[in-house]
Amino acid sequence: MQFLSDNAAPVHPRLWDAMRAADAPDTPYDTDALSRELDARFTALFGRECAALWVATGTAANCLALATMVEPHGGVICHAEAHIEMDECGAPGFYLHGAKLLLADGEGAKVTPESVAAVLAGITRGVHQVPAQALSITQASESGLAYRPAELAALAALTRQHRLGLHMDGARFANAVAFLGCSPAAAAGPVDALSFGCVKNGGMGAEAVLLFDVEQAQRLRYRRKRAGHLQSKGRFLAAQILAMLDDDLWLDNARAANSAAALVAEGAGERLVHPQEINELFVAMTAPERAALREQGFSFYDWDDASVRLVTHWATDLDDARALGTAIARL
Amino acid sequence: MQFLSDNAAPVHPRLWDAMRAADAPDTPYDTDALSRELDARFTALFGRECAALWVATGTAANCLALATMVEPHGGVICHAEAHIEMDECGAPGFYLHGAKLLLADGEGAKVTPESVAAVLAGITRGVHQVPAQALSITQASESGLAYRPAELAALAALTRQHRLGLHMDGARFANAVAFLGCSPAAAAGPVDALSFGCVKNGGMGAEAVLLFDVEQAQRLRYRRKRAGHLQSKGRFLAAQILAMLDDDLWLDNARAANSAAALVAEGAGERLVHPQEINELFVAMTAPERAALREQGFSFYDWDDASVRLVTHWATDLDDARALGTAIARL
Amino acid sequence: MQFLSDNAAPVHPRLWDAMRAADAPDTPYDTDALSRELDARFTALFGRECAALWVATGTAANCLALATMVEPHGGVICHAEAHIEMDECGAPGFYLHGAKLLLADGEGAKVTPESVAAVLAGITRGVHQVPAQALSITQASESGLAYRPAELAALAALTRQHRLGLHMDGARFANAVAFLGCSPAAAAGPVDALSFGCVKNGGMGAEAVLLFDVEQAQRLRYRRKRAGHLQSKGRFLAAQILAMLDDDLWLDNARAANSAAALVAEGAGERLVHPQEINELFVAMTAPERAALREQGFSFYDWDDASVRLVTHWATDLDDARALGTAIARL
Amino acid sequence: MQFLSDNAAPVHPRLWDAMRAADAPDTPYDTDALSRELDARFTALFGRECAALWVATGTAANCLALATMVEPHGGVICHAEAHIEMDECGAPGFYLHGAKLLLADGEGAKVTPESVAAVLAGITRGVHQVPAQALSITQASESGLAYRPAELAALAALTRQHRLGLHMDGARFANAVAFLGCSPAAAAGPVDALSFGCVKNGGMGAEAVLLFDVEQAQRLRYRRKRAGHLQSKGRFLAAQILAMLDDDLWLDNARAANSAAALVAEGAGERLVHPQEINELFVAMTAPERAALREQGFSFYDWDDASVRLVTHWATDLDDARALGTAIARL
Repeated sequence: MQFLSDNAAPVHPRLWDAMRAADAPDTPYDTDALSRELDARFTALFGRECAALWVATGTAANCLALATMVEPHGGVICHAEAHIEMDECGAPGFYLHGAKLLLADGEGAKVTPESVAAVLAGITRGVHQVPAQALSITQASESGLAYRPAELAALAALTRQHRLGLHMDGARFANAVAFLGCSPAAAAGPVDALSFGCVKNGGMGAEAVLLFDVEQAQRLRYRRKRAGHLQSKGRFLAAQILAMLDDDLWLDNARAANSAAALVAEGAGERLVHPQEINELFVAMTAPERAALREQGFSFYDWDDASVRLVTHWATDLDDARALGTAIARL
Repeated sequence: MQFLSDNAAPVHPRLWDAMRAADAPDTPYDTDALSRELDARFTALFGRECAALWVATGTAANCLALATMVEPHGGVICHAEAHIEMDECGAPGFYLHGAKLLLADGEGAKVTPESVAAVLAGITRGVHQVPAQALSITQASESGLAYRPAELAALAALTRQHRLGLHMDGARFANAVAFLGCSPAAAAGPVDALSFGCVKNGGMGAEAVLLFDVEQAQRLRYRRKRAGHLQSKGRFLAAQILAMLDDDLWLDNARAANSAAALVAEGAGERLVHPQEINELFVAMTAPERAALREQGFSFYDWDDASVRLVTHWATDLDDARALGTAIARL
Repeated sequence: MQFLSDNAAPVHPRLWDAMRAADAPDTPYDTDALSRELDARFTALFGRECAALWVATGTAANCLALATMVEPHGGVICHAEAHIEMDECGAPGFYLHGAKLLLADGEGAKVTPESVAAVLAGITRGVHQVPAQALSITQASESGLAYRPAELAALAALTRQHRLGLHMDGARFANAVAFLGCSPAAAAGPVDALSFGCVKNGGMGAEAVLLFDVEQAQRLRYRRKRAGHLQSKGRFLAAQILAMLDDDLWLDNARAANSAAALVAEGAGERLVHPQEINELFVAMTAPERAALREQGFSFYDWDDASVRLVTHWATDLDDARALGTAIARL
Repeated sequence: MQFLSDNAAPVHPRLWDAMRAADAPDTPYDTDALSRELDARFTALFGRECAALWVATGTAANCLALATMVEPHGGVICHAEAHIEMDECGAPGFYLHGAKLLLADGEGAKVTPESVAAVLAGITRGVHQVPAQALSITQASESGLAYRPAELAALAALTRQHRLGLHMDGARFANAVAFLGCSPAAAAGPVDALSFGCVKNGGMGAEAVLLFDVEQAQRLRYRRKRAGHLQSKGRFLAAQILAMLDDDLWLDNARAANSAAALVAEGAGERLVHPQEINELFVAMTAPERAALREQGFSFYDWDDASVRLVTHWATDLDDARALGTAIARL
């Protein structure tokens, strides 16, 4: 019973069908009919004009989006635990040509207007320091917590005031929307760019970069090619993303994952490090307790000395989830 | 009847089967069983130790391989018509952090020891000029011509003498091997790294970077991650590549593509700009002649004012190929 | 008798005086009184608003200026013999983060509207090729020839049409102005940025970057600091530049250098590869002839198999120049 | 009475003399006699073989040195208050092509084996995190404190164990040696590279990069040229550095600066945030107290809400220093 990562989830059958259906001759790169459909579909979904481009990974999505906002001598404010800071092997430094990540604090891996303002307040030495040019936030955060629309509005007010671009890493955006129960637009707030995740939500190898500043799309297309991310059979990436949007599969998958997590959370009770909101749980646990769970057949990652991380996904068996919850309760 | 590009070919059924079979839980990134099989399979295929890593595109494969050989202040000698020079939107400049392409001449988009030596002879100003650190050649070349083993040996002698890395862009390596009728090892020669193409040969979105200097593998893994090319469900890329190798599917596909091209070449006769060797033909043709062919339902790219490019692939219908040959002969 | 390079010339006494005078306490970096004077002085000299910043070298000046015009995925059109292509060890690739130099032809190392248009016409493959974003020309050219105002106007019309930035490498701008006998503004034409050379003209280690798009100045200040070119005692660089402008010392020095070259040119006669315009001559000469001159005590660089390069400077002794002219005439 | 920065100090008369003496014809760049003398002089000074290259600024010195140790996908451990982190506008990101600074703690801006080990211990995620490849320390630190030889040995043991390069930012290395009263070699410890500062110590615009791994010198020469830091009249930089070494002027200047600081420190007494070791003092002071001092004609920088920074230099008038000490004592 695997609770390691939503990365490890199988590909959803409807995506397989869509990919097979895409295996007809069409023009290469992103000139095929499916790829050309993306802009309109996401514009409809978010209710505001956007350009939508596929890439294979979240790292590429995040960095290409940020590259439309940040110059090589600039900086990106993000949480100290953000994926771009902790898990991307310096990809922002590569894609942004040496631009710097400027780290902000915040409970539950969420930045706050105060913590962002504190970073900005530290930039006082003119050309001797890197100027902040963007804020990147993660919806839901690395701790599995979703920004509420009011929180997004407060951050966006700050970024407007300081002329910062606003980027959202949405590797688990679907889970955040499912939890918040609001529209995708409300869950995104007034971001300039959104990395719309699919891989963790039943995809194979496709994420969408959404640019609400559509003027930036051509720049991103050049950068995507230059990074070796313009796949020649891009129709298979477009097919995955479109299948996700059809009949809101992306939300159904996210709801399923969140529900499974809720079953685990019930059993975890007071052990939860953060309230359960999405499909990612952090549960306080001693080493012997971890061993006991693993002996019962549950696999998961150690997070730190005090806690483990448990992740569910669209295909997590609810009985397994219940079993894990019960097992934790019994520890 | 489509002769635009082998990029546009469908995915081979055996690759679909392999990908479906890979859709079982496994560990993420390249830690899965299939990805871990690659080194051994390519080592066996080439008869010398190599590290094999998947990436999604040939551009990424070429640039990541070159990044193991060339420093940011260095240069890469390549043919003036090489894909890395002409078609990758400056990707080498990105991946190599500003390193420079140093352009060599040669008939049929093949460099020669003389043309490479001429580039080297032009580097005389010490630190005022970029030092050459690698030679990148394309097997088969952009003009569809294969380097013979003796040609490879001569180039390798030169690179050894000048301590240059030797990289081979093998986007159509399969077609070259099929044409040469030699072993993969003989068609590669003593290269340090080979971009082993699959996408143009019936793949969906996977190429293999082969490093015969296996010490470089860890460096390339970091660079791959940093470039956003470490896909979390990498098992699907490994599955494609392994399926290609099973029972020499890669060679069968290449032979089929080459055979179709041969049928076209028969009709093209004296119009051939270069002898037909692989699945890519350049055929002298006037504008009215092009129009006439297109009216008969053939699609293809204009190459320049004097000629068109015709490309076949593993799934090209032999009747279509014959029909095109006949149509050209009748012009 | 040294005709190797104007690089090797001594520092003009008035610059020494100015530097000594600058050795009083002032605020560091470019906040001192002298540095703050530069904008106004160059604005007056060129008759249009500009921002003027000092750097130590022409390479830094050229690359920092280009970095205000060209994105990392972009390209700079320049002559195939331009200094940025041939003599800066890939500095443009470093400062522009991998952007590409796109090489144009032209007699005497001068590009023409036709040769620039030919480069532009070759960019046809959308995101697969680097888009041109700037044109960089050298006044006077690497062959010692000056662009006439009408030539500049024709090139500027083309750059405006294609929305390219226009940069001028003015390492020997003073010599060009002295030769043309026109105003600095006319010799610069409608460029967006000019690297205004001092080092070859009697300076020690200061060049001025002039930005006629003054909005770009703050960006360049960040980039200059980031490149380690914001010297803390910048007043000594400003002092050199201001002393050059005082009473048109820069023009007097250039005229002296040009005059010395004219004396050499007289003797060279038919051997001149290009007409003598500035302080740089290319003279056809066999190996034995070169040896004969060197035996007479003249030092100079071999240019290629057919010719040598002879360079004069502000302090070249006119008798030495005459002697060299005579010696060549006697060969 | 100016206590703002040693950056603002005048140039020492013996350096002026040396520069004037260098104003004779010689070959350009670093091929002149003075530049060629540097290796031997520093080898003698440190008692172990080193290559010594001039550059104009400490930022360039630090970054070029680090570029010999760190790959673009690597990381540099340094103190969170290090100059390369706080004051160089992201220059390490530029010169190292996106490599990351990994921040360590430590009292008085000095890292400790424990704080460095803590950074290393946090690198656990394989290719998902940047690997540490170098440690950069500052002698004396940003807080004006010198590493003792035993501290250097302990850090070097750690870097050897983890195969990290060891770089020393020696912008105030002279002041550290003067304070420690040991040999230059002992004050440097077994570093691989040292940025040997001159500008703050009476120089005009020259620092020396010392590479004790002399194999790296040619790489650094390419990188220096590529960064636009190979000045054509490099003899003037070499002249400054050599004059500094003659008769230990560098140590005399540093001792003078340190002595002036000691006079100030006497008056500051308990207000000293750190013990006075070199020419930089941090003194606790309220806003009204600062105003009072400024009214008496003393100029200095606010450091933070609690303290000010006071810096002396080789030419600081000892009466001024005493006066400042007295004024602080009277507050």
